[in-house]
Amino acid sequence: MGSNSFGEIFKITTWGESHGKALGVVIDGCPAGLLIDEEEINQDLSKRRPSQSKFVTGRNEPDKAEILSGVFEGKTTGAPICIIIYNQDQDSSSYEPIKHLLRPGHANFTYLEKYGTFDYRGGGRASARETVCRVAAASIAKKILKNYGIEVVAYIKKIGEVEAKISFATPQELRKKTLQSAIFCPDEKGQNKMIKILEDIIEEGDSIGAVVECQIFSVPTGLGDPVYQKLEAKLANGILSIPGTKGFEIGEGFSSAMMKGSEYDDLFILNDQNKVVTKTNHAGGTLGGISTGMPIIFNTAFKPASSIKKTLETLSIDHKKQRLELPKNSRHDPCIAIRGVSVVEAMAVLVLADAILLQKAIKHF
Amino acid sequence: MGSNSFGEIFKITTWGESHGKALGVVIDGCPAGLLIDEEEINQDLSKRRPSQSKFVTGRNEPDKAEILSGVFEGKTTGAPICIIIYNQDQDSSSYEPIKHLLRPGHANFTYLEKYGTFDYRGGGRASARETVCRVAAASIAKKILKNYGIEVVAYIKKIGEVEAKISFATPQELRKKTLQSAIFCPDEKGQNKMIKILEDIIEEGDSIGAVVECQIFSVPTGLGDPVYQKLEAKLANGILSIPGTKGFEIGEGFSSAMMKGSEYDDLFILNDQNKVVTKTNHAGGTLGGISTGMPIIFNTAFKPASSIKKTLETLSIDHKKQRLELPKNSRHDPCIAIRGVSVVEAMAVLVLADAILLQKAIKHF
Amino acid sequence: MGSNSFGEIFKITTWGESHGKALGVVIDGCPAGLLIDEEEINQDLSKRRPSQSKFVTGRNEPDKAEILSGVFEGKTTGAPICIIIYNQDQDSSSYEPIKHLLRPGHANFTYLEKYGTFDYRGGGRASARETVCRVAAASIAKKILKNYGIEVVAYIKKIGEVEAKISFATPQELRKKTLQSAIFCPDEKGQNKMIKILEDIIEEGDSIGAVVECQIFSVPTGLGDPVYQKLEAKLANGILSIPGTKGFEIGEGFSSAMMKGSEYDDLFILNDQNKVVTKTNHAGGTLGGISTGMPIIFNTAFKPASSIKKTLETLSIDHKKQRLELPKNSRHDPCIAIRGVSVVEAMAVLVLADAILLQKAIKHF
Amino acid sequence: MGSNSFGEIFKITTWGESHGKALGVVIDGCPAGLLIDEEEINQDLSKRRPSQSKFVTGRNEPDKAEILSGVFEGKTTGAPICIIIYNQDQDSSSYEPIKHLLRPGHANFTYLEKYGTFDYRGGGRASARETVCRVAAASIAKKILKNYGIEVVAYIKKIGEVEAKISFATPQELRKKTLQSAIFCPDEKGQNKMIKILEDIIEEGDSIGAVVECQIFSVPTGLGDPVYQKLEAKLANGILSIPGTKGFEIGEGFSSAMMKGSEYDDLFILNDQNKVVTKTNHAGGTLGGISTGMPIIFNTAFKPASSIKKTLETLSIDHKKQRLELPKNSRHDPCIAIRGVSVVEAMAVLVLADAILLQKAIKHF
Repeated sequence: MGSNSFGEIFKITTWGESHGKALGVVIDGCPAGLLIDEEEINQDLSKRRPSQSKFVTGRNEPDKAEILSGVFEGKTTGAPICIIIYNQDQDSSSYEPIKHLLRPGHANFTYLEKYGTFDYRGGGRASARETVCRVAAASIAKKILKNYGIEVVAYIKKIGEVEAKISFATPQELRKKTLQSAIFCPDEKGQNKMIKILEDIIEEGDSIGAVVECQIFSVPTGLGDPVYQKLEAKLANGILSIPGTKGFEIGEGFSSAMMKGSEYDDLFILNDQNKVVTKTNHAGGTLGGISTGMPIIFNTAFKPASSIKKTLETLSIDHKKQRLELPKNSRHDPCIAIRGVSVVEAMAVLVLADAILLQKAIKHF
Repeated sequence: MGSNSFGEIFKITTWGESHGKALGVVIDGCPAGLLIDEEEINQDLSKRRPSQSKFVTGRNEPDKAEILSGVFEGKTTGAPICIIIYNQDQDSSSYEPIKHLLRPGHANFTYLEKYGTFDYRGGGRASARETVCRVAAASIAKKILKNYGIEVVAYIKKIGEVEAKISFATPQELRKKTLQSAIFCPDEKGQNKMIKILEDIIEEGDSIGAVVECQIFSVPTGLGDPVYQKLEAKLANGILSIPGTKGFEIGEGFSSAMMKGSEYDDLFILNDQNKVVTKTNHAGGTLGGISTGMPIIFNTAFKPASSIKKTLETLSIDHKKQRLELPKNSRHDPCIAIRGVSVVEAMAVLVLADAILLQKAIKHF
Repeated sequence: MGSNSFGEIFKITTWGESHGKALGVVIDGCPAGLLIDEEEINQDLSKRRPSQSKFVTGRNEPDKAEILSGVFEGKTTGAPICIIIYNQDQDSSSYEPIKHLLRPGHANFTYLEKYGTFDYRGGGRASARETVCRVAAASIAKKILKNYGIEVVAYIKKIGEVEAKISFATPQELRKKTLQSAIFCPDEKGQNKMIKILEDIIEEGDSIGAVVECQIFSVPTGLGDPVYQKLEAKLANGILSIPGTKGFEIGEGFSSAMMKGSEYDDLFILNDQNKVVTKTNHAGGTLGGISTGMPIIFNTAFKPASSIKKTLETLSIDHKKQRLELPKNSRHDPCIAIRGVSVVEAMAVLVLADAILLQKAIKHF
Repeated sequence: MGSNSFGEIFKITTWGESHGKALGVVIDGCPAGLLIDEEEINQDLSKRRPSQSKFVTGRNEPDKAEILSGVFEGKTTGAPICIIIYNQDQDSSSYEPIKHLLRPGHANFTYLEKYGTFDYRGGGRASARETVCRVAAASIAKKILKNYGIEVVAYIKKIGEVEAKISFATPQELRKKTLQSAIFCPDEKGQNKMIKILEDIIEEGDSIGAVVECQIFSVPTGLGDPVYQKLEAKLANGILSIPGTKGFEIGEGFSSAMMKGSEYDDLFILNDQNKVVTKTNHAGGTLGGISTGMPIIFNTAFKPASSIKKTLETLSIDHKKQRLELPKNSRHDPCIAIRGVSVVEAMAVLVLADAILLQKAIKHF
């Protein structure tokens, strides 16, 4: 259906390169009547970077999203919504010296193999810059989730060997704590240890991987579609489409391998409101790919950033041995997962919005 | 595009319930001229169960796939291929006593919430029985991979705390060792320890989770499509659509969280045949979602089977507390991942076949 | 999305060849809870042929549809519905003598060019036999339309120069008159003249084309999706996918070319129930591709059947001049449009059902 | 797949309203390596209007397309191509006086019914203005056709009762004659009569319908996909998605209804180059939905423009009787089909480009 599109009914198509004129997203299938404020989208975009954080490099000027279509008098009209973000800072001259080199951990080799061309300016479509479009689209999709009271919160769970301890009174509290952290980690103790690691990483000119956890609260039962569009299958598709991700797990995930059925099975009980819930939530919020009504919990593994301040052995495109040194002014993220937090959240929002519309289509006959 | 379909060009649509009359798959978009032998498909189906293994329960009669269309005089014609597998053993009377109970770890609660109906006979579409159709379809798709010399091999990597050590001379050797094992584990020592665990699990009437690893060899460069159809994103979608799966990781996967960029980056070098390869393969065979030509390596986490020989507290559909005891003659798999091995393999084959056709469509202009 | 599939949410995939073992259809995306009776489907299938009509040849035994999945205890479950129709009469030996000949007006030449193979038994996937699956699927889809009171009626409008005059009190009356006719033409006078033409055609061993008109009554406003899935665009797609069709027009259609805006424009007025309607219906029930609430009226042009009882000059597949004479026992339809009536109706039903579900998905936000 | 998208592999998604900030198209699935010149696209856009023609109204400033992504150093890169066309002339104040009126023949009533909103500025997404995006996209798609030597030429065939006589030595000659005509009609005599009709229509402040014919030359055999994506079915879908179209016919089309099989069947013969062709081409270039290699010929019926300089009775959105008089400065096309010529051509190009890529995907196994 086009490899730059995602979703069945609420469907996004993104375009634009990291060092081209602009990037953008077209949202098709968005219901009419949703209240949209351009300013809100821009606030969501700025949230991709924790405020005053030295752990996330940024372009000098903030991104500015502009809605070009699909919204009239502050409301969606049902027409496709195009949001454009012009690249303020598209100077790619610093890439000139390395334009003929295969970059370890980057996609320029594979794009060359696939397309026979080689866009040496930044990462092209493989760049994490593309994800700004997902966050903008999710800013619209969130309006659908809001109708159902659904809350999506992602945060840093693990960096190196340090794992955050997550405790919170309400989803709102969890989000607040997350946004207060310079590295989007809601656990203050854990965060401090992680920051220590990151400071070392920055000093070394190196990078490090991380795990981002995402929780979705107040999910209605019945979302997700068997067999190939199970909710977790769509989430996994969306998550693994984020640059730098290497793994997805839901509920107990890879720990399930070491568990017995007798400890794993989530028993059905009635809660205080006489609603069917499960006593535990090892499954992570779905059964048979359909939401149980329990919180959906999933983890995303991010690799360490490929761009580091070290000289690397590599090859040129004509297969000569070369040494790769990145331009002095290159941006380096010590931990791309921090910026990834809002993208994980965005993909979860997009999957949920689509699942809601799909469910509306077939319900109540 | 229909939640029972998978793939863009080489596209499968499966149908049928675990206790209905039959199951089947329609393959659309299969190139003409592939040599097909019904017997070969049936051999692939029988491989879902290790020979003489007590660790996998099975229906009494073997599955018998019949090609109803799309093949003429032993060759595919380009028309849709329908393969049907009649259920030999569709007696669901033993489910009668538990027909009104929510089954922990099963999908009958969520199907009820989604569809307002409750098919109490086995797992319906949520049953692992559906995967027989994927294996049948992959048996056709393999013919496309064969043209490129691609080999896909999956096996048990981990059960409980025991992790197999994988060493092999050739992909063929790896497959041979895997098929010789009663639990599809190619490492004899590891396998023996795992068997010990499984024997205890059977005695306890319990079940256990596992990790299945899959390797894809001789992959051409350039397969996979940016941005939302990255090869790993499609694999993750396919894998998480398998009943009982809880996680997917490629290359270093979740271990990436603890790695530094300087140790993670795979450096480009020339191999003996003057071909560009990477010195290491932490990425697991893709960069930017496109194949590098290195082996693709991914892991799948399987949860422990939900059906165990223990009495469980649960609710009835009218919200009364009940005790659930499975029928005496119910089938119990101590470790569903063993049967999952061939399904993981099948999904990888289907993803690769589709990626090959998509790449053919746009190449060489 | 697979060239053997049709529809976005209510989606059918058909398979099977005219002289293969069986044909079938998989319906994905059908809402749960619809009451289904296998017998009703078979009645719809038998309606493809007017009763006791000499103007439509038929297989000796009636088609017998069997539901293999997706229906439990008389209701749809939300799972994919597979309906199979076994070919009773798959003897293709009579095609042996002409197996090496290109058949004028048939698709064996183009299938050979496309796929490199040549299924000489009947028309394979190009055969009108495939349409039995569409009628079976529409038999299910009709249940969705019924919820909205929508009625679809198709009939023969024109054969040769004779055009039927259509007058009717109610849609039900129109359908009744149509079903009473030996050629599905509700205008008795016109029908008699057409029958005279057909009798001559049969005597000559020739065939003739026709126009089928279809009306859809009680259509809710708001169905159809701009821009590329306008209701008429989807109808046109569906109609032109029926074997033997050569044209589609909605409302005034090709007559529009000779009309002025001042006579064409349909003025908005209030009807007796204070509902907005249009005074005339030149547009044929849609504006901007979305239903107005007025009846949808469209025409389908059918070509004369290619198979006639005359010897034709042709080529063999190795490019030698040959004479083609059809087997003595070949079936000949003097006018394929008669059998096409129920297929046109089926495609209209399928398009409407899908449009209803798509509209449900985005409505009321 | 999103109602603002068209195509399976070469896939366009358009966005933007007639009186919004901008319109645009995203092309996904375009092969890499095609030579692209922004200037060429702008030339194609300007061709939508015959030069110095009084029969087509136009915006004051010409459209200016800008490529925002997907092209690097003059070549397509395989990344999605976004082309934007800013609306120079988006003043919609003249629509203020009629903003509360249902406009006969327009889509504002149906959009209101579907979406609950009412964009009173011009036609929104229903406006023919959207088609500028199709022409821009086709300008890229033509590069694919060029590789195969395929030529697509559309022209005015009929206005009122006047039908053009089409004779030409080569496709290039036909195109040249068409572009020389003030109304895109390659037959000088016919054109003169049509111009007389149009001059009367303009004087009356009325509008008139027309038929546009399109021929596609040098089509390879084997394009188009059975069953639901027959070449003519995709063309019909594409054509009926153009605003103002009411009918599509291929080959003999609706005339087939009056023909006998013995006169209709196209006999296979060898041509001078020993290639299989058909003696006649009543079918219009396809059999079974797949191209025969003969020219594809199809007609499109356009209705008369709805906007005329006459006062019309109508209703307001609150159901009061009103009189509708269009703003003095409204644009009036006496015959929208003239502008439709290049859009018909564009849709044919898009369908062919997609069919070529689909065929590449499955060929030669």
